[in-house]
Amino acid sequence: MNHVHQSCPIARTAELVGDTYTILIVRDLIGGSKRFGQLQESLQGVSPKTLSQRLKTLEAADILTREAFAEIPPRVEYTLTEKGQALHAIIEAMREFGETYLPEPIGDVLRAS
Amino acid sequence: MNHVHQSCPIARTAELVGDTYTILIVRDLIGGSKRFGQLQESLQGVSPKTLSQRLKTLEAADILTREAFAEIPPRVEYTLTEKGQALHAIIEAMREFGETYLPEPIGDVLRAS
Repeated sequence: MNHVHQSCPIARTAELVGDTYTILIVRDLIGGSKRFGQLQESLQGVSPKTLSQRLKTLEAADILTREAFAEIPPRVEYTLTEKGQALHAIIEAMREFGETYLPEPIGDVLRAS
Repeated sequence: MNHVHQSCPIARTAELVGDTYTILIVRDLIGGSKRFGQLQESLQGVSPKTLSQRLKTLEAADILTREAFAEIPPRVEYTLTEKGQALHAIIEAMREFGETYLPEPIGDVLRAS
C-alpha cells in the first residue's frame, strides 16, 4: 500500500489488518495466549513461513507479544497487547456480518451434524 | 484461503474483506456511488487490473452493483447493495481503532497544515 492513504484512519487500520491470516490470528488470540503450533493448527493451510511473518509484523506493530519459555521442548506463546485487544470490536463486527450475510456452506453444516 | 475455515463466520467475512483495497473500496462507496476513475484516484497506487478484479469479486459476492450508462464517454458506476452497506459497522470499527491506536504519521500532519 501507498503511504498516501495513511491520512485516513480506516486506511491505516486496513494496512495493519487487511489480510485474512492476520484477522484469524487476532481472532484466535482474543480467547487467550496461544502457541505457534496451536495457531498453525487453527489456521489450516497456512505455511510456517507465512504464519511466522504475520506474527513478526504484529509484534512489531505492538499488537501482540512473543514470550519464549526455557522448557524442553521450548515453548513460545503469543498474547495480544492492550492495543491488540482493541481490535475486538472489528472482529465482532466481522462475526456479526458473517452470521447474518454469509450463511455457512451446506457442506460444513453437514459435517458439523 | 482454505475452505476448512468457513465454518467460522469471522473467517467467512475475512475471506471477503481481508484485503486492503477491498476495505478501501467499501469505505469509498459508503459515501455513495462512484465511478471507476474516482475509485482509482482515491486508491492511489492501485493498478486498473487489480481494481477491476476487486470490483468483479465484490459484484459476484453481491456487495456492490455495476451500472453502465450509454453516454459519451461511457459512464460506469458502482454502488453498494444492502449487503454491502452492512459492512459499515466493520469500517466504522476500523476507523475508531485507527483514530485511537494508529496516530497519523508526522509527515502527513505536516503536509496537511
